Amino acid sequence: MSTDHQAVTIRDCGPRDGLQGETPLPAAERAAIANRLAAAGLTDVEAVSFVSPRAVPAMAGASDVAQLLVAGSAVWWALVPNRRGCELAIEAGFDHLTVTVSASSVYSEKNTGMTIAESLAQVAQIRNVAEGAVIDAIISFSFGSPYGDGVTAAGVAQLAADLRAEGVDRLTLADTTGSATPRRIAAVLGQTGSDVGLHLHDTRATALTNAYAAHALGVRRFDTSIGGLGGSPFAPGAGGNLATEELVLLFEDLGIDTHVDLEALLHIGELVSSLIGRSVPSRVASAGGLPPFDV
Amino acid sequence: MSTDHQAVTIRDCGPRDGLQGETPLPAAERAAIANRLAAAGLTDVEAVSFVSPRAVPAMAGASDVAQLLVAGSAVWWALVPNRRGCELAIEAGFDHLTVTVSASSVYSEKNTGMTIAESLAQVAQIRNVAEGAVIDAIISFSFGSPYGDGVTAAGVAQLAADLRAEGVDRLTLADTTGSATPRRIAAVLGQTGSDVGLHLHDTRATALTNAYAAHALGVRRFDTSIGGLGGSPFAPGAGGNLATEELVLLFEDLGIDTHVDLEALLHIGELVSSLIGRSVPSRVASAGGLPPFDV
Repeated sequence: MSTDHQAVTIRDCGPRDGLQGETPLPAAERAAIANRLAAAGLTDVEAVSFVSPRAVPAMAGASDVAQLLVAGSAVWWALVPNRRGCELAIEAGFDHLTVTVSASSVYSEKNTGMTIAESLAQVAQIRNVAEGAVIDAIISFSFGSPYGDGVTAAGVAQLAADLRAEGVDRLTLADTTGSATPRRIAAVLGQTGSDVGLHLHDTRATALTNAYAAHALGVRRFDTSIGGLGGSPFAPGAGGNLATEELVLLFEDLGIDTHVDLEALLHIGELVSSLIGRSVPSRVASAGGLPPFDV
Repeated sequence: MSTDHQAVTIRDCGPRDGLQGETPLPAAERAAIANRLAAAGLTDVEAVSFVSPRAVPAMAGASDVAQLLVAGSAVWWALVPNRRGCELAIEAGFDHLTVTVSASSVYSEKNTGMTIAESLAQVAQIRNVAEGAVIDAIISFSFGSPYGDGVTAAGVAQLAADLRAEGVDRLTLADTTGSATPRRIAAVLGQTGSDVGLHLHDTRATALTNAYAAHALGVRRFDTSIGGLGGSPFAPGAGGNLATEELVLLFEDLGIDTHVDLEALLHIGELVSSLIGRSVPSRVASAGGLPPFDV
């Protein structure tokens, strides 16, 4: 049933976005999760973040994690917050980098101390330092902001155009606190085109529906997190990421190839639960795969 | 944006399916929830079940609840498990009745001690007793069964035809343990037609996506539960019902009229939480409505 033009690329952000708000895990455990995600079929994994360990203790030791990743088993992504982080990431061997810029001016200034224009200038610096790397610019709060700062579809589209002008290779639209709906996604994609990634959070239980609707609109890249862990520690009430298990279960049932083995994901979810010491939020992690049904 | 042919009817089953597995609440509190749902705009509420109070203690006192419902403020539905329950419901003033028949032979025999054929015969008895009433037959496990008893789309369609032949006025397809997907729903509706209700559970985080996809296929009647409470106490791991808040938030954003006031629902969710002594599972109940976004 699968056809190539329907197939999707899933980037599991569990080791980064998923774990960043958790009690810190040792580098070896974070690398083990990342390597098992690659073995389960994930072609892309966001493995680390080169942020300040003072700001985000759970992301300390990114270079140690990097050394334990199995080269070539997946495209390994590193989040770099600034020029210094970018240099460290390149030293550690990463050639796929995520950078974030916020469509919310309030969040940008609160979280990074920069205006949106200043964060764009920083992306330009990162672009210069990371000449040969693939850079994916993630626009946070792409579908609404809880800070009353008037994020609009036109504003997001302008920011996307500005980032392309700075030479980023890809764009990902992030629904940081679960404000997206199929209608809002259609409105933004109408201005940016559908050659973007989507980074969805399940704050309002809409993440899977948004992915389903976005796929119908042509989106083929999705960020998820094993177990549905995650949510910005700097955006209260962000809610977990769209769970990898949930996207894989739905899309595979629809005949959309994800390249990912759901059974293997369920085992990784158990590993993650045991490492963080509580159940992961993903409902598929609890309920397991679908029972048979002859249509 | 709303057009009448898009609008949906939501039946909130919170006072019945939502509360049936909870520590029993007094009749006055259950009626208060039901009345507030009606005041929030719900046109249909499943208020009670005339099951044995020994089997389902939380549903005891259905006639007491009935006396406290504001007549005419909503279509009040009562679940009737058999002829005796039907007689009690009619005595209590109900003229809209739900009956359940299982597409899973294993569940049917385990839960009711009847074969599917015997449960069809019982629906015929109820139809005779409740001459003037509207009967909605709910087919449980319509999209798959965890019991390995080979539920199929064709089997569900045959059961639907058998129920229509017994004279039921409406059919609702229930996804009792969250096995439905847009593909499975399309397969079943292809045989039953889309003039059915859908009763979705969020066991695998697919409930909202299924509702979204089913609406596109023409379904206009949905069962939900305030706060996402619920799940059959006799089907382990059933998972809560699709939360009323979540369906209303999504559909209203899409311009699909639900007649329901989301802000009022959020207040009812708080009431329900305080009565049951814990948070309700609905993510919208926690996160609230959408922030603004100018498309």
